[in-house]
Amino acid sequence: MSADLSAVKVLVFDVFGSVVDWRGSIERDLSAWGKTNHIQADWGGLALAWRSLYQPKMQQVRSGQRPWTLLDDLHRESLEELLPKFGLTTLAPDDLDHINRVWHRLDAWPDAIAGLTRLKSKYVIGPLSNGNIALLANMAKHAGLPWDLSFSTEWFKAYKPMPAAYLGVAQAMNVKPSEVMLCAAHNDDLKAARAQGLKTAFWPRPTEYGSAQTKDFKAEESWDIVATDIRDLAHQLLN
Amino acid sequence: MSADLSAVKVLVFDVFGSVVDWRGSIERDLSAWGKTNHIQADWGGLALAWRSLYQPKMQQVRSGQRPWTLLDDLHRESLEELLPKFGLTTLAPDDLDHINRVWHRLDAWPDAIAGLTRLKSKYVIGPLSNGNIALLANMAKHAGLPWDLSFSTEWFKAYKPMPAAYLGVAQAMNVKPSEVMLCAAHNDDLKAARAQGLKTAFWPRPTEYGSAQTKDFKAEESWDIVATDIRDLAHQLLN
Repeated sequence: MSADLSAVKVLVFDVFGSVVDWRGSIERDLSAWGKTNHIQADWGGLALAWRSLYQPKMQQVRSGQRPWTLLDDLHRESLEELLPKFGLTTLAPDDLDHINRVWHRLDAWPDAIAGLTRLKSKYVIGPLSNGNIALLANMAKHAGLPWDLSFSTEWFKAYKPMPAAYLGVAQAMNVKPSEVMLCAAHNDDLKAARAQGLKTAFWPRPTEYGSAQTKDFKAEESWDIVATDIRDLAHQLLN
Repeated sequence: MSADLSAVKVLVFDVFGSVVDWRGSIERDLSAWGKTNHIQADWGGLALAWRSLYQPKMQQVRSGQRPWTLLDDLHRESLEELLPKFGLTTLAPDDLDHINRVWHRLDAWPDAIAGLTRLKSKYVIGPLSNGNIALLANMAKHAGLPWDLSFSTEWFKAYKPMPAAYLGVAQAMNVKPSEVMLCAAHNDDLKAARAQGLKTAFWPRPTEYGSAQTKDFKAEESWDIVATDIRDLAHQLLN
């Protein structure tokens, strides 16, 4: 560990894709649910199409075009827009509620819980995620993520990569930005965090988007730590 | 467990006095520190005098007489006001910082961690405390409190017993107030929570103030649960 990381006290994690496998989880969860309920669809395709609307929807909020809107509500809008394409227009409202809440039921990547548990022995750890507070709490319960506390960007009313999201963590914890490290599998998120003075840690999730993946196969800047996964991040920070 | 508690999903805990022993912890921590640093004072008396300024200082914020101010800063003001009375006027700023942060280093009552750990298996658990975010995070780390997430009233900019503090939890978790239970050793806190529709659980901490204790020896209303301590609360909710 390089000397200038010795001041780091708080580790915040990007969650979707970095800590949990949203694509695989959604495909598994909804395939099982569809089987039970005799509803056939390309659930893996839905997951990818759904996620592709994630940034455009948040951008409407970031730009000020619309007021603060929870990710649960943005997800619901996107889902409804996609129903015709996936032949799901006959679903009941309760079914749509259940499908929309699949984002609360994502599973961790296999290394995540062991790595986070080790890191928790030394650092305050939490998500810094655009997922809303309830989503992150339910996901942590579902996946067994051992967070100390939750930095949903809902608290800051500023979706990443807006500076207020990263600076909000440092302010809330009463530490300097350089005492906070953003840990993520996405170069863009880390760039935005570094621009606000946070430390940075990267590991790749090369199957996050399956065969549709086009980026984030490797570190694009000299991040403070480049790891193979969260277990390796713990190894590098604690040894 | 009565039937109408079956909908409860989130347990939020008052912390100072209910989960952690602030008086005993401050006396132990500062006595040890004073001994090491050859500073003698009535540390137990300081703890009580300090805490007696807690409600008046917050009331200045609640009333709108002054803007939102973190509990760390209110504590610091109160401490400085008390220094002459306790013969501590010659302390250096670093010493005062260390003393003020004793509120980050409070120990749990003996039943708390076992009880919370059991409750966490079924419920989302977190503090709902007037302690600021950093204070609660550091305290949880120090005392080993296994919170899922933290509802510092700093997030809501509303000190308990203002309604916004209790309602803020339900709103953030996207549940009804009746799906949240406030768990506390203080009748006044529970009264304010019940007025907003939250469920309520009480246990006494008859030594919180030592021989100076004048209230909260027993339940003053028919709270939804009356327990002997947090371990018993877990027993009642989970069995």
